[in-house]
Amino acid sequence: MISGASGTGKGTVCQKLLDESPGMVYSISATTRQPRKGEVDGREYFFITVEQFKSWLAEEKFLEHAEVFGNFYGTPAHKIEECLSSGIDVLLEIDVQGALNVMKKCPDGIYIFLLPPSFDELCNRIKKRGTESPEGLQRRLASSTNEIAVGKNYQYVVVNDSVDDAVKKIKSIIAAERCKVNRNLNDFEKYKGEESLN
Amino acid sequence: MISGASGTGKGTVCQKLLDESPGMVYSISATTRQPRKGEVDGREYFFITVEQFKSWLAEEKFLEHAEVFGNFYGTPAHKIEECLSSGIDVLLEIDVQGALNVMKKCPDGIYIFLLPPSFDELCNRIKKRGTESPEGLQRRLASSTNEIAVGKNYQYVVVNDSVDDAVKKIKSIIAAERCKVNRNLNDFEKYKGEESLN
Repeated sequence: MISGASGTGKGTVCQKLLDESPGMVYSISATTRQPRKGEVDGREYFFITVEQFKSWLAEEKFLEHAEVFGNFYGTPAHKIEECLSSGIDVLLEIDVQGALNVMKKCPDGIYIFLLPPSFDELCNRIKKRGTESPEGLQRRLASSTNEIAVGKNYQYVVVNDSVDDAVKKIKSIIAAERCKVNRNLNDFEKYKGEESLN
Repeated sequence: MISGASGTGKGTVCQKLLDESPGMVYSISATTRQPRKGEVDGREYFFITVEQFKSWLAEEKFLEHAEVFGNFYGTPAHKIEECLSSGIDVLLEIDVQGALNVMKKCPDGIYIFLLPPSFDELCNRIKKRGTESPEGLQRRLASSTNEIAVGKNYQYVVVNDSVDDAVKKIKSIIAAERCKVNRNLNDFEKYKGEESLN
């Protein structure tokens, strides 16, 4: 999972990571909102009814969920498990609030927090995006800095100085995690064997 | 730190890792044995007197130490700290027994256990090395498999299928560890700042 405050550039980093990682897919959220033109069920989103959403919620099928402007959004755990059990890595890009819930439910996940290159750059990016009042911009900056403080709960932090370097670091993190002893306990069984040199 | 049972090929892996890692040095042990022809103090070993060794031991300057054929060997912590504090990584190649002591003393270290490619290959390598009796070989194999079981106490495990791949994985582990949140808490301070867009 990759998270980061708004203005960190996580969308670009995630896209490049996916492009360079065969065997990795993006986690697809479920939503109750109507598909927009060109959107395909199971590609942009799983488009489901409110009844379906509520039933998945009751069955605890969501790692996290939220309501935005009257529509429901959620990350379906069973869809992720389907991928993982066929050996496919799943990339989740989730906001800071949702992330803490996912961590509790998936202690085996890898949690990476992206930081903007600098405080000044964060300010610049927020300014560029917003067409808001000075007060609105100030509010968004405060919200970003609050989100950044939550990053200390993650396992890894990557500063997004350059997209290439950030992606390289994230790939190293994934490669390293594959070497964690607790993910490879089976390897040790091979050497118990017969203990014979015949 | 890199450990592995005998017959795992850790010497070759460590040498290649060092060759490819500017800014990394090999930890030099201290010993009370006489320098052999061509050996230089501070390069192969720190050659010290028994009195000096005992005084370092009393001052708890060793991460681990051992006596082999009447000579003392030890890993001097203060020499490692000198490197680390000037930003140089230190590679330790330590046997399984010594490693557990080092882990307790250096919880910040990165502990990597190398596994031989397969049980058969481990047998072959032990056979090739030894000019011993069948019983002697059997004893060495039993000792290797016991050492391998200790590997579960490490953080990372790398199977030495190919030296190139093993070194690549170890470099990923080092790169990933540099991204651990607890090694980068200062990064988060930068974004508290003024919280101002002026």
